[in-house]
Amino acid sequence: MDAAAITPTLRWTGDSIEIIDQTRLPAELVLLDVRDVASAVDAIERLAIRGAPALGAFGALALVVGLDEAQPDSLDAARELLARLRHEIGDARPTAVNLRWAVDRTIDAALAAPELFGAGTNVDSDSDSGNARSVDELRRLLLEEALAIGAEDARACAEIGRLGREVLAEATVIATHCNAGRLATAGTGTALAAFYAKAAAGEPVRVLAAESRPLLQGARLTAWELADAGIDVSVVPDGAMASLIAGGEVDAVIVGADRIAANGDTANKVGTLAHALAAADAGIGFYVAAPTTTIDAAVPSGDGIVIEQRSPDEVHHAGGQRLTPEDAKAVNPAFDVTPARLITAIITDAGVLQPPYGESIAQALAEAEPAGSAAGRC
Amino acid sequence: MDAAAITPTLRWTGDSIEIIDQTRLPAELVLLDVRDVASAVDAIERLAIRGAPALGAFGALALVVGLDEAQPDSLDAARELLARLRHEIGDARPTAVNLRWAVDRTIDAALAAPELFGAGTNVDSDSDSGNARSVDELRRLLLEEALAIGAEDARACAEIGRLGREVLAEATVIATHCNAGRLATAGTGTALAAFYAKAAAGEPVRVLAAESRPLLQGARLTAWELADAGIDVSVVPDGAMASLIAGGEVDAVIVGADRIAANGDTANKVGTLAHALAAADAGIGFYVAAPTTTIDAAVPSGDGIVIEQRSPDEVHHAGGQRLTPEDAKAVNPAFDVTPARLITAIITDAGVLQPPYGESIAQALAEAEPAGSAAGRC
Repeated sequence: MDAAAITPTLRWTGDSIEIIDQTRLPAELVLLDVRDVASAVDAIERLAIRGAPALGAFGALALVVGLDEAQPDSLDAARELLARLRHEIGDARPTAVNLRWAVDRTIDAALAAPELFGAGTNVDSDSDSGNARSVDELRRLLLEEALAIGAEDARACAEIGRLGREVLAEATVIATHCNAGRLATAGTGTALAAFYAKAAAGEPVRVLAAESRPLLQGARLTAWELADAGIDVSVVPDGAMASLIAGGEVDAVIVGADRIAANGDTANKVGTLAHALAAADAGIGFYVAAPTTTIDAAVPSGDGIVIEQRSPDEVHHAGGQRLTPEDAKAVNPAFDVTPARLITAIITDAGVLQPPYGESIAQALAEAEPAGSAAGRC
Repeated sequence: MDAAAITPTLRWTGDSIEIIDQTRLPAELVLLDVRDVASAVDAIERLAIRGAPALGAFGALALVVGLDEAQPDSLDAARELLARLRHEIGDARPTAVNLRWAVDRTIDAALAAPELFGAGTNVDSDSDSGNARSVDELRRLLLEEALAIGAEDARACAEIGRLGREVLAEATVIATHCNAGRLATAGTGTALAAFYAKAAAGEPVRVLAAESRPLLQGARLTAWELADAGIDVSVVPDGAMASLIAGGEVDAVIVGADRIAANGDTANKVGTLAHALAAADAGIGFYVAAPTTTIDAAVPSGDGIVIEQRSPDEVHHAGGQRLTPEDAKAVNPAFDVTPARLITAIITDAGVLQPPYGESIAQALAEAEPAGSAAGRC
């Protein structure tokens, strides 16, 4: 793998955010240069950028873009602007908790910084030059916090990748589901981070990517990002994975997570449970890879995780064409819950958690920094 | 269900075969009137008609169409014609064993009939009127055998439906996979026959049809034929079925079979195994519905069933559009094998077989007529 050749999902250019337009994948790699708020909100709304951690890092940087665009002439004007952007950017995708969290964190950190008011008691504070200095300082603080969010996510991904590689040391043919990769994060992803780490170490790895109907994130995004990085990847129909696992053709399964309950029950993209059942039946490892921030300690078990029901239209269509008869209905749960008993280990940035998860999760959370956030959900 | 309103998959009109053009489903119901061999072969090759039993019944009738088209003026000419049609029609889809079997059976039965040579020692046998009588008689014999093949299949389907309804008496929400229905047979299908029987009896039934990637027979064909018959049907992504089963939203699963080994291991459309694993884990019934002719007693277990690997292109595309990146590979097994231990019962035209299947299958085969054929594989 030539890391230098890999296009990052998002990148701060100095005065704009360069992102991969994921709506154009896998057909073509198109980069967008986002340098105004309207373009940033549009990119979020039409899913040009997606994946909770990536959205968080992007939304935070979009605040700097917004400041540069509006060029407020006073700190008060900048504050008013940020109050508006907090909603305009932070609420661009209501279900993306990371987006709102990252926007809030960035604004709050910048406005609370003592440096910003270092000249607050200075006679220059209301002068033009003082205002300019303060707005410049605000921009510096916003950018610092926004870049920190991305860097934290990238570090969590790298650590998960390092541990994932260790856990999967004996595995070569590895199955995954949906896209828990670099396209969803500001780093190398979670589940896919293990593949990047194996490839970087020169270890053989062959990935079986379940296509992940209805939205085909596996077929479109996982296949694209791994192939783009020179990693051997084959798309597999969701329903065919159990057969390959039962036939001894898969060494292990690793997936990301949308939410992990206190007992280890894990919600992930629908289709995950079937792979877990097949892995358990065949006696191969089934691993969840996610930052500790994905653990929702307030939810005791999977029973408490509400499954989002999405539009039947996503099932009725693929590749832009209607697949089903007009008078057929469709059921479209976005996630499923894999019970902890089917999970061999949970690979986090705070270590590899083993069953019983009630204990190992509690310990990991106690040792982790009190992040108290949704950051880094891959 | 208004049985009278249902369009049959194939129907002998008196001088042609009327079929549903399945390549136009589910978008529109188009009937084809097949009255020459070229059209018959074309319909088979482009999958306008598919499903092993339906192909058998169709291929047999196509012999009559071929005779009417060529109008041979002697029995010898008719024999030459049939020798040609045996290959032209019988080999139109090489993997469809039923097609070749039905064509062979029809030709062999007609040519072996003593009636055909009732005037064989008659002085008229070489006269024009004798030839005409013999060719007419041959046509009658071919048609009789062809219609018998369809009728046998329809009877097997009806019996499977009757027994399936009994087995599923307590079930209302029932999952299925692929298309084991009237579109694949000359009757009401196998797995779907149970739904038609339930609906005809006025029992509530709600079908969850797994879409069955990559070719989407569930989303396209099962959804169409059940909705067309007024039966409540919802399409479910293959990977979502396990979640619905685990969540207690499914009462039972019933599927067809492509081949059943002597120990009950069952090959069916890929994706079936994942539903079976989910059903076993959740403690609901998982049923296979198939005529006894689907049992291949020569194969001791599923290990002996060779899985057809189909073109990766079927995975790379859906709805006519490329879904995956150009440099990604794809794996596309056509079938999977569900081990007998996951199967609650096998519903056949010779009764409901219970585990241990080694015994119940041997008994059913001993009691069944020595068909020795592949007829009725749904």
